[in-house]
Amino acid sequence: MTLDSYMQELGRAARTASRRLAASTTAERNGALHAIAGALDGARERIAVANAEDLARGRERGLDPALLDRLELTPARIDAMLAGLGEVAALPDPVGAISDLASRPSGIRVGRMRVPLGVIGIIYESRPNVTVDAAALCLKAGNASILRGGSEALASNTAIAGAIAEGLRAMALPAGTVQVVDTADRAAVSALVRMEGYVDVVVPRGGKGLIERVLADARVPVLKHLHGVCHVYIDAAADLAMAHAIAVNAKTQRYGTCNTMETLLVDAAVADSVLPGLGEAYREAGVELRGCKRSCALLPGIRPATEADWSEEYLAPVLAVRVVDDYEGALAHIARYGSGHTEAIVTADHGRAMRFLREVDASSVMVNASTRFADGHEYGLGAEIGISTDKLHARGPVGLEGLTSQKWIVLGEGHLRS
Amino acid sequence: MTLDSYMQELGRAARTASRRLAASTTAERNGALHAIAGALDGARERIAVANAEDLARGRERGLDPALLDRLELTPARIDAMLAGLGEVAALPDPVGAISDLASRPSGIRVGRMRVPLGVIGIIYESRPNVTVDAAALCLKAGNASILRGGSEALASNTAIAGAIAEGLRAMALPAGTVQVVDTADRAAVSALVRMEGYVDVVVPRGGKGLIERVLADARVPVLKHLHGVCHVYIDAAADLAMAHAIAVNAKTQRYGTCNTMETLLVDAAVADSVLPGLGEAYREAGVELRGCKRSCALLPGIRPATEADWSEEYLAPVLAVRVVDDYEGALAHIARYGSGHTEAIVTADHGRAMRFLREVDASSVMVNASTRFADGHEYGLGAEIGISTDKLHARGPVGLEGLTSQKWIVLGEGHLRS
Repeated sequence: MTLDSYMQELGRAARTASRRLAASTTAERNGALHAIAGALDGARERIAVANAEDLARGRERGLDPALLDRLELTPARIDAMLAGLGEVAALPDPVGAISDLASRPSGIRVGRMRVPLGVIGIIYESRPNVTVDAAALCLKAGNASILRGGSEALASNTAIAGAIAEGLRAMALPAGTVQVVDTADRAAVSALVRMEGYVDVVVPRGGKGLIERVLADARVPVLKHLHGVCHVYIDAAADLAMAHAIAVNAKTQRYGTCNTMETLLVDAAVADSVLPGLGEAYREAGVELRGCKRSCALLPGIRPATEADWSEEYLAPVLAVRVVDDYEGALAHIARYGSGHTEAIVTADHGRAMRFLREVDASSVMVNASTRFADGHEYGLGAEIGISTDKLHARGPVGLEGLTSQKWIVLGEGHLRS
Repeated sequence: MTLDSYMQELGRAARTASRRLAASTTAERNGALHAIAGALDGARERIAVANAEDLARGRERGLDPALLDRLELTPARIDAMLAGLGEVAALPDPVGAISDLASRPSGIRVGRMRVPLGVIGIIYESRPNVTVDAAALCLKAGNASILRGGSEALASNTAIAGAIAEGLRAMALPAGTVQVVDTADRAAVSALVRMEGYVDVVVPRGGKGLIERVLADARVPVLKHLHGVCHVYIDAAADLAMAHAIAVNAKTQRYGTCNTMETLLVDAAVADSVLPGLGEAYREAGVELRGCKRSCALLPGIRPATEADWSEEYLAPVLAVRVVDDYEGALAHIARYGSGHTEAIVTADHGRAMRFLREVDASSVMVNASTRFADGHEYGLGAEIGISTDKLHARGPVGLEGLTSQKWIVLGEGHLRS
């Protein structure tokens, strides 16, 4: 069988399964999530063997240690997968909710019903636990999913897929509900993102290389996360102790996450009060600073920033620092260099706080809080399939609701258009 | 100036204007809508001259009469444009609304704020009144717009653009708020749909050729309307008088609209009771029928349908008719041949009505009502930019809300992530 006909077969099976899922009950879908957890629990040994295979092959190929770490399925990570399934099962079912049902002058009643999207393609990299997490969210929201993990995790993902299939069988849900692409052929990704008739949306989860490859090929809509160049702006009216604490937390609480601050903006009016202390805190934390001229004057010895630094997503203990003339200067800097992910202001001025919320164009805008809060769990979504930096459909952390759509429903009693 | 640098300039101006619009008040935007109406009213003569030019050139080129009719701006059509501006100004402002603001266990308060999308590209065909209608909806929702009309309407659109610019100036809004592409070069469309940095979404309004051209080139998200292959299914438990009336209305109330029924499905149990009377009604209305074997047996003399008929969007007094074995047969037919636009069931059976609403995958699903109701005005949206057959973002009739996005807002008091 050619790759193309293999992928078409997956697509067809997923579309058929999605019709069955659209007719499924909450209890069936939750039952399947629990059954999958049970099957995974029973397949621990098989999964461990497969994972050891992937790890051995990865070491042979000289994969770097960080990648090998992400690839490894320790017993604790399998426990976490099982717990995750239970958490998703416990979330409220978004499907079927009817809102805004109202009578119209013509006499018809019109409202909106939340329904599954249909078929979701997930493309991800080395972590095999994504196979379970993504499948669980798609299933809970009534969608069929086609999962394409990294080739380095193929054996692990195939073992996990076996357990998922067992759980689905136990609840008499079709095998097409969750399908793992079981070829290492990279062309599978291009095929997946071009199956307009079968796939309703593709969610790439991974580095920029992956996402750009997907965007270049995609004919189906893509829910994507591109960059996270997040700012904290310390306003002239900020509580400086609060500003210090937020600026430290937003950078140092974790370095590799997309909601970590990458550029600190400081109002010129308070720069000399706040920057020296912050410089000290960052030095102690081992954060390298790259500053504008005025920052360098206040923080002797730091490296001058280049133009490229203002657009950089370091994902590392590196921070760009810029002193801005005023509030307008901060907004202009964010409009020019921000990636539309998460932006925060520290201020005690109510008007400027409100303007920041309204006018700054980002998926999350924050007042007096650390950018690190931009996260599905922190926002109460329960779990997230990813964080979208797109403006259409779902923006920011995408939970179950982002995996659904709303259709219009019309209730008449023989009404005719005149 | 090359086409590319001209388009880039429009994009840059639109992006800058969108920042100003994000900071604008409801009163400013409504004031601009009224000022544009005033300016158009004062420019009637100039617009008439430009329109006469377009019409003369169109006649020279041998445009067909239907196209020439759509191109013509009669005084009544200009009145309708002015009235439309007033109606849009009177709609509630969607921008700035905050929903679901709730406290989280961490202490932060999290909610969502409705905000403009940013910059919207509209690509349309011969009707110059779309220039005003589309600009008005974009502006009301706080978006900058770049409008690309048909080359046959270039003089008319340029004259209208002059009046819009005058209205914007009167309210001190930037000229980049509404820009009309003033070149007949078709490459402008390809450039517009690839300006990812400047354009947030493109809405093509026109025939399938236009939409397919846009999809082939697009790098920015597209809100599109593809096909309208709408069904009415007369269930075994239908009130047959109601079914007759709805089936006639859904087909004959208007032929050229996307929400017109194109295939009638009739349950075998009631086919012989309902089809002969319907055949008579369609014959009187001049509707040509194309039937499955069983329909042909009940309606002697009608043309047999081919496989292609089940997927056809006739947009004409032609109707495909199929007798299905049962409810499941109707759902299977719709799943296979429907275009996801609007689907209706006529039934007195509550369970089947509810299943139809839940399981049929379309932007509008209806019980006991004519498909012709699928329309922004009928749904209470006030006005629509189009009807989307996509599942992401806005589905079905797209009004002001579909031209906005929701961002997350976080209110803290110095909260840190731990």
